[in-house]
Amino acid sequence: MQLGLVGLGKMGFNMRERLRKGGHEVIGYDPRPEVTDVPDLAGLAAALTAPRVVWVMVPSGDITTGTITGLAEVLSPGDMVVDGGNSRYTEDGPHAALLAEKGIGFVDAGVSGGIWGLTEGYGLMVGGSDADVEKVMPIFDTLRPPGPREDGFVHAGPVGAGHFAKMVHNGVEYAMMTAYGEGYELLAASDLVKSPQAVYQAWSNGTVVRSWLQQLLAKALKEDPKLAEIRGYTDDSGEGRWTVEEAIRLRVPVPAIAASLFARFLSRQDDSPTMKAVAALRNQFGGHAVQRIHESG
Amino acid sequence: MQLGLVGLGKMGFNMRERLRKGGHEVIGYDPRPEVTDVPDLAGLAAALTAPRVVWVMVPSGDITTGTITGLAEVLSPGDMVVDGGNSRYTEDGPHAALLAEKGIGFVDAGVSGGIWGLTEGYGLMVGGSDADVEKVMPIFDTLRPPGPREDGFVHAGPVGAGHFAKMVHNGVEYAMMTAYGEGYELLAASDLVKSPQAVYQAWSNGTVVRSWLQQLLAKALKEDPKLAEIRGYTDDSGEGRWTVEEAIRLRVPVPAIAASLFARFLSRQDDSPTMKAVAALRNQFGGHAVQRIHESG
Amino acid sequence: MQLGLVGLGKMGFNMRERLRKGGHEVIGYDPRPEVTDVPDLAGLAAALTAPRVVWVMVPSGDITTGTITGLAEVLSPGDMVVDGGNSRYTEDGPHAALLAEKGIGFVDAGVSGGIWGLTEGYGLMVGGSDADVEKVMPIFDTLRPPGPREDGFVHAGPVGAGHFAKMVHNGVEYAMMTAYGEGYELLAASDLVKSPQAVYQAWSNGTVVRSWLQQLLAKALKEDPKLAEIRGYTDDSGEGRWTVEEAIRLRVPVPAIAASLFARFLSRQDDSPTMKAVAALRNQFGGHAVQRIHESG
Amino acid sequence: MQLGLVGLGKMGFNMRERLRKGGHEVIGYDPRPEVTDVPDLAGLAAALTAPRVVWVMVPSGDITTGTITGLAEVLSPGDMVVDGGNSRYTEDGPHAALLAEKGIGFVDAGVSGGIWGLTEGYGLMVGGSDADVEKVMPIFDTLRPPGPREDGFVHAGPVGAGHFAKMVHNGVEYAMMTAYGEGYELLAASDLVKSPQAVYQAWSNGTVVRSWLQQLLAKALKEDPKLAEIRGYTDDSGEGRWTVEEAIRLRVPVPAIAASLFARFLSRQDDSPTMKAVAALRNQFGGHAVQRIHESG
Repeated sequence: MQLGLVGLGKMGFNMRERLRKGGHEVIGYDPRPEVTDVPDLAGLAAALTAPRVVWVMVPSGDITTGTITGLAEVLSPGDMVVDGGNSRYTEDGPHAALLAEKGIGFVDAGVSGGIWGLTEGYGLMVGGSDADVEKVMPIFDTLRPPGPREDGFVHAGPVGAGHFAKMVHNGVEYAMMTAYGEGYELLAASDLVKSPQAVYQAWSNGTVVRSWLQQLLAKALKEDPKLAEIRGYTDDSGEGRWTVEEAIRLRVPVPAIAASLFARFLSRQDDSPTMKAVAALRNQFGGHAVQRIHESG
Repeated sequence: MQLGLVGLGKMGFNMRERLRKGGHEVIGYDPRPEVTDVPDLAGLAAALTAPRVVWVMVPSGDITTGTITGLAEVLSPGDMVVDGGNSRYTEDGPHAALLAEKGIGFVDAGVSGGIWGLTEGYGLMVGGSDADVEKVMPIFDTLRPPGPREDGFVHAGPVGAGHFAKMVHNGVEYAMMTAYGEGYELLAASDLVKSPQAVYQAWSNGTVVRSWLQQLLAKALKEDPKLAEIRGYTDDSGEGRWTVEEAIRLRVPVPAIAASLFARFLSRQDDSPTMKAVAALRNQFGGHAVQRIHESG
Repeated sequence: MQLGLVGLGKMGFNMRERLRKGGHEVIGYDPRPEVTDVPDLAGLAAALTAPRVVWVMVPSGDITTGTITGLAEVLSPGDMVVDGGNSRYTEDGPHAALLAEKGIGFVDAGVSGGIWGLTEGYGLMVGGSDADVEKVMPIFDTLRPPGPREDGFVHAGPVGAGHFAKMVHNGVEYAMMTAYGEGYELLAASDLVKSPQAVYQAWSNGTVVRSWLQQLLAKALKEDPKLAEIRGYTDDSGEGRWTVEEAIRLRVPVPAIAASLFARFLSRQDDSPTMKAVAALRNQFGGHAVQRIHESG
Repeated sequence: MQLGLVGLGKMGFNMRERLRKGGHEVIGYDPRPEVTDVPDLAGLAAALTAPRVVWVMVPSGDITTGTITGLAEVLSPGDMVVDGGNSRYTEDGPHAALLAEKGIGFVDAGVSGGIWGLTEGYGLMVGGSDADVEKVMPIFDTLRPPGPREDGFVHAGPVGAGHFAKMVHNGVEYAMMTAYGEGYELLAASDLVKSPQAVYQAWSNGTVVRSWLQQLLAKALKEDPKLAEIRGYTDDSGEGRWTVEEAIRLRVPVPAIAASLFARFLSRQDDSPTMKAVAALRNQFGGHAVQRIHESG
């Protein structure tokens, strides 16, 4: 089918390629002239045959809202917008309402898979009405991995449910990465284990902990067995923070996910103010020596 | 090759079957007459041709130590013992020393895979000298999953390294299960998500969090979508506790694994003494009502 | 000085008493006829001499906002409103703006001390302009404990800073209570320690962990040495949740406070969905027995 | 009464002073000639009148065991040894048994208070038989703070109970310090709060979180308001590690104490291997940029 695609960054660019290989006609718009197919959103609307479907794949927050607001002006009743970016699920309702005023439908789609999605397919978590989701199904079926639809795609619920499921996916991802990280650190700290890489490699088949992430860590360790070239500094995307905020709203205890989020915050600090206070306290009550900044450089 | 196998419980029984299918001659000993091939350890030694290899697959702790001590008495110099049970890695050195006095070799083998190992193969993590490990390799190659050896087997290091790697495997397993559990609870707590099961199912392909455990949880949720029939009560095996103890010894921070261990402890308490104390404190300083035992039944 | 006081519940009632003992003229309003001094907010405004100061001590959220909105209608330019309730600090700005439109000043005051404040004085954390805070100082000086002002009162910053400091106070309080709770549970679990109560009592002088909460727990344990009559069920006030949300916003790792918040969530669950999922997983891969609901009643 | 005191370091030296001021005759032994009163343990025994009481105040582990073994050789039946150091409680039984063979009594005494104990008195947690504890009571009564005995001293149970209670004390101390540290970090991260020091100072009276540690942190912040001169690097004593190990043995969930212990481990790492692995994983699946060591210096 025909699809408009706004945003041809790392994700959008690959998705256009996968969709075209799948036989779809994709007209892409991006502010960068070297990658765009049309000059602007109005040009995109003009190039598409109604009823149009436009997939938005731009950074979440103001840029997504701005894009959807812009589309509301150039699209027509009966058209559809899909937000495939990493929007917070709470933004989906307002976006849907804004488009509904013009008679335009809305579906939110959480997309997982990163740079591997181009060849392996993307895991999709989708929210919206049955009718709206159905209209986009040919696109979803090409983007998702081959095999049974339910193994790589879910219509999770009404508008917002797709991004909610994707947010939880990322929260789980945080905790899994921490789990593998802790395992690596323990193996690396032991005198007994010759090669943490070989252990991670050996977990690929037959074990309880086998997974895609386990295999990726084995691969990363093969390239750099002591991760000597990589700093522990780690950004966090909105989804991890939103997951814990949502857990608080829903009164769900999430110690493993929260520990993983806090470890990321900590990885970006030069020194921990909390531990400065602890060191100061030990000095106060016990006369324990503290490491003074000017001493250690 | 020929193998003696001590312990024909849930794991040992299946392993005997997999090994026999793989063309090995397995003579099993178990105190239960209905499953054993020989009457006792002496009978096992007599039935095997030297140099013998005997695999021990019995509960860790005193029973494993007792079995190895018994084998030291009936085996001969040049024979080999493999401890495939869940022994703490710190016990491997003493066991190896005990056998070495009689000229008997020792290899420790961490075995993962549970009830699925019979058909899919077992993930193996092995410790010992190169020569000793080599002697058991035909057995390892049959027990492990098909495919490249390094994807399901690792000779992790000297005696103890196999059980150390298996211990870490289980620590990681704890944290991964908690991660998926927290994800499930968030999905189940949301009004938006129609079916947590469908979301877990859809994570099977293309997503970052795909794994064997993810698929098992999707399967469990298919059988009981609200886990209504299952209590949260969860035992912990020694490996989880040992992992955190080892982390403390090695000064490795393991917040996700420790949180998972503590969640299991908590799941077995009728009420939390810690939270009783917190409730008592709130009552003391704030006059906050407490739930009294006799009120709530 | 003269003060209007809206809200004569557990906190407000005691504060009126402490202020009157301190020589202030307090005119209280409460919807309950048996405790109120005036029939309504208009009556309160009429009973006070301009420039008026009105202290609001009602539940946070809609009730506080409604009260402040009502006061904006009956008060005059030059008057002052103090919000002494547990409002989220983010609400202070809008409340101040609403009042500023009428020329009415605003100060937010976090109040700690619970039922003990009547006799011991309340710890006060205050936000607002220097001029506004100065107008209320005679009231603050009577409410706070005797001794140096800076040991029981802080003008923490502009509007919002008082409730922010109080929010952090409560987050710290959560983690301290968990710390003492964990200590209690360890002492109670040991065969060696005859009386956890006696240990907590003995921490009152000379130790590093001595505190008011420590003494309160010793007192609670004296009344009920095994806390046999108290359930671990524990509510959480908004401040604990807000503290973790704020930590996420500020990218501050707060593992101890978050663990304490999650422990409260957990204390209110009949069974943990997370641990149900973990139990289900163990059953799937290991054939580990699960406790089924129908078996255990 | 007369007391032998082995170990005149930071703690022992001060204790000798406090005891002498309290009217006791203290004969101290220390390998450093400049502080010792006698040349060796035999000289200490010779200088004391039987039945002797000797207080051991030396580093825990081998040095304490060596000292007690040495005392067993020079003391006589009916004498007493008190271990006032930070021994692990599990060592008390063997030490008591070793001394009992010679008819020598044993009491373990956990001592809290650090450098402040000289003037304020030490919090004491004691284990041993009623008769043995009674013999040392005049010493305990001088060391502990003035006031009711039960507010600064506890005979917690049989041999080992004193050090067990002290171990738990330190575990609680860890979590309290983390709680105050997190509170400090939140206040310091906020734009609203002018002075975290002033807030901590104001918590001294009337608040729920008031404590000795709170006042010490206020004091430390007065000296260095941004803790600019102090690194977060923080050692951990054995007691914190032992508390978590003991919690595991007793199956007691201690999330707040464990988080505090792990934060200390982390504070001593140049970079976190766990977070290196997480960064490596993000790079593998998402193409997220990592900070390479050679880039950032």
